[in-house]
Amino acid sequence: MKQKSNKYVLHVVIVGGGFGGLYAAKKLGKNKNVRITLIDKRNFHLFQPLLYQVATGGLSPGDIASPLRSILRKYKNISVIRAKVIDILPNKKQVVLEGGENISYDKVIIATGARYNYFGNTQWLAIAPGIKTMEDSLGIRHRIFHAYESAEREKNETSRKEWLRFVIVGGGPTGVELAGALGELANHTLVEDFRNIHTEHTEILLVEGMDRILPAYPESLSRKAEKSLRELGVTILTDTFVTDMKDNEVTFKRDNMVSKIQVRTILWAAGVKASMIGKVLEKRLNVKTDKAGRVYVNPDMTLDDRQDIFVIGDLAYFARNGDEPLPGLAPVAMQQGKYVADLINKRLQGKETNSFHYTEKGSLAVIGRNKAVAYFGKFRFSGFLAWLIWVLVHIRYLIEFDNKMMVLFQWAWNYITMRRGARLITGDDPFPYMDEDYYSQVKNE
Amino acid sequence: MKQKSNKYVLHVVIVGGGFGGLYAAKKLGKNKNVRITLIDKRNFHLFQPLLYQVATGGLSPGDIASPLRSILRKYKNISVIRAKVIDILPNKKQVVLEGGENISYDKVIIATGARYNYFGNTQWLAIAPGIKTMEDSLGIRHRIFHAYESAEREKNETSRKEWLRFVIVGGGPTGVELAGALGELANHTLVEDFRNIHTEHTEILLVEGMDRILPAYPESLSRKAEKSLRELGVTILTDTFVTDMKDNEVTFKRDNMVSKIQVRTILWAAGVKASMIGKVLEKRLNVKTDKAGRVYVNPDMTLDDRQDIFVIGDLAYFARNGDEPLPGLAPVAMQQGKYVADLINKRLQGKETNSFHYTEKGSLAVIGRNKAVAYFGKFRFSGFLAWLIWVLVHIRYLIEFDNKMMVLFQWAWNYITMRRGARLITGDDPFPYMDEDYYSQVKNE
Repeated sequence: MKQKSNKYVLHVVIVGGGFGGLYAAKKLGKNKNVRITLIDKRNFHLFQPLLYQVATGGLSPGDIASPLRSILRKYKNISVIRAKVIDILPNKKQVVLEGGENISYDKVIIATGARYNYFGNTQWLAIAPGIKTMEDSLGIRHRIFHAYESAEREKNETSRKEWLRFVIVGGGPTGVELAGALGELANHTLVEDFRNIHTEHTEILLVEGMDRILPAYPESLSRKAEKSLRELGVTILTDTFVTDMKDNEVTFKRDNMVSKIQVRTILWAAGVKASMIGKVLEKRLNVKTDKAGRVYVNPDMTLDDRQDIFVIGDLAYFARNGDEPLPGLAPVAMQQGKYVADLINKRLQGKETNSFHYTEKGSLAVIGRNKAVAYFGKFRFSGFLAWLIWVLVHIRYLIEFDNKMMVLFQWAWNYITMRRGARLITGDDPFPYMDEDYYSQVKNE
Repeated sequence: MKQKSNKYVLHVVIVGGGFGGLYAAKKLGKNKNVRITLIDKRNFHLFQPLLYQVATGGLSPGDIASPLRSILRKYKNISVIRAKVIDILPNKKQVVLEGGENISYDKVIIATGARYNYFGNTQWLAIAPGIKTMEDSLGIRHRIFHAYESAEREKNETSRKEWLRFVIVGGGPTGVELAGALGELANHTLVEDFRNIHTEHTEILLVEGMDRILPAYPESLSRKAEKSLRELGVTILTDTFVTDMKDNEVTFKRDNMVSKIQVRTILWAAGVKASMIGKVLEKRLNVKTDKAGRVYVNPDMTLDDRQDIFVIGDLAYFARNGDEPLPGLAPVAMQQGKYVADLINKRLQGKETNSFHYTEKGSLAVIGRNKAVAYFGKFRFSGFLAWLIWVLVHIRYLIEFDNKMMVLFQWAWNYITMRRGARLITGDDPFPYMDEDYYSQVKNE
């Protein structure tokens, strides 16, 4: 054992190495009186907002993920454990790892994030995969490129059309970005690659229940995004709900009109649900959760009357104005991570602390080359300028963490050549075996 | 259907998109009178010599693989089919695809390569994976980094040592490169990453049945390679055979001494066996194969008295001097691919053709940063110069195919920082489910 622990005054356990957990760890790690244990079931931090780029072959997994140990290696007071936390024992001040080991804490920061939400239709998971993990995005990449390969070989005209049809459920940023990337694949990247099909004939249907896509954005930007997507051949169905799904068929409902469409590839981007640790906290502490499973937190990100349990990021329900929660965005999680680290430091020194205050960072969604929408407070951008901001914001983040200069080169290269080199089909169709976690989660609901 | 076929005088089917098949396709594709169909069960060409870099986290899958369609998109007379060829019907002049479709040919070039060879001990596959496919290398990456994660968490001293012990079976170029990369991981890349273990204590055992590693190389280079490996903490066991294997135990034999060692990670690099198409050809044409399943070919790469079937690359047994076959190297396959394309072109024009002649390209094996061995005819190199030649040769090839400038940047970056960013553990331990092909192959032997 290399590490001496007797010199530390406090042991903080952080569960989850996403945006929230990692920012908390980096900030707390600077305090040499505190020992930190970061627990994650993966060995890497994942830049989730770029998962759709892996799913569409533009980037490789290594481009958007960094080993947690590597990011934190300079902090000798931080230990990383690759394990799954399955329970929390507030009275014993312990977290329970799968396999039986318990880890004691003085303070615990829970940042386990969220997964996709099928609103009770869990059988849709195998039909329409969501995109939250690296495995998800590799699986979706498999499905997308398998669909084109199958279309190329298909002799039957009707079946060929079904292979060239994609339904994306959910018109939020993820759905919009996926639809845009698919449109670029179909109309630019793949045009010269096939001999029996015209990839420009790809049908992409983006289905949204509200009256416009990007409903959280200013309406003018929704319109701009719709226009950009239409230019890439995307059909947008608003006020439309998916009511049923089978392997090769989706049923839509709009007003009282029900229609069915035959399709081989369905992707899910319609909502998220907090991770199962929310349920654990509900059971152990009798705290309140909302429909999406998020845990109501105090203004200082603690739970109930516990001063030693913090919940941050997508798992937390932080009421801003009245009862409206903060959105599940990376900047929210980052700020909460830093806030909690700061709070723990200040309380150690006996200093006063304030409530968490979210500084609005604006929002960005990219549709394709030179096509994006963005807003920062009153400022709204679209087209090339928004796209450029998007690139710079993401590169800045990626460089901060792991000097991922490669991604910049890769993007520059993809931009110039309009190609995507990472469109490999490996392994078998991975759905749904990899979602044991999800199944075990919903089983208990 | 976009493609008109009536203008072509010949239809050439190429089975396999490795070095041999791809070079044949690129050369033949320039002849606009010939229509070519390239069939591969993958949608990408794989740069196999760098698989060990993916397995050890230095490169991402997308860095060493390129979509076949993308490489060949400019050749409008080449169609790519992603399918598995399961039979060949010489009298009907057809290849049979899995699922039932038959493809007719005027000439067929078979370049399906080789897989690992367990010399009858197929049950070892799940214990000691080989490294021939992308899935293999991702699976091995999983095992290597999982071993370090497990060692970090392991409380029991003996078990921790077993997690930090790696046995590599086979001291040819693949085994040497794997051992070197593991040594660099243990002694450089990972040193700062763990808190409970010293990665420098990693034990790497390289087991070779002959009296020196790299037995196909000049002896002076074997000695240099041994020295470089020892500097990276690798233990080299020559004249040693693996006689048995269980999940956590390997049995070695040296002379009459039998010893057992407890180990959690065993990697296989001890030999290859030709793909199952060799068996098919043996059955259909009564041609001769050798112990490793390679098909004896005529001096013009044809089979028996068939002028319309060519076998090239690792699947072919091409006798050079007396009965010694050409080695299973990329340059051999590339030259044979070009040769056969040329031969078909010349025969179309009624020109004379010569037998295949292999132009020796020399051999290269890299052990680590600044450490490699190389020979070209009488010239022998080691150390930094050999390493530099290795980098330039590989970059030249990668750029030729897909302008993979990224790899150059990635290497430069890894070189400067001594880091490996792609060491992600994704999915479950993938062995042995992915080797259905291999199982179905050995089942029929």
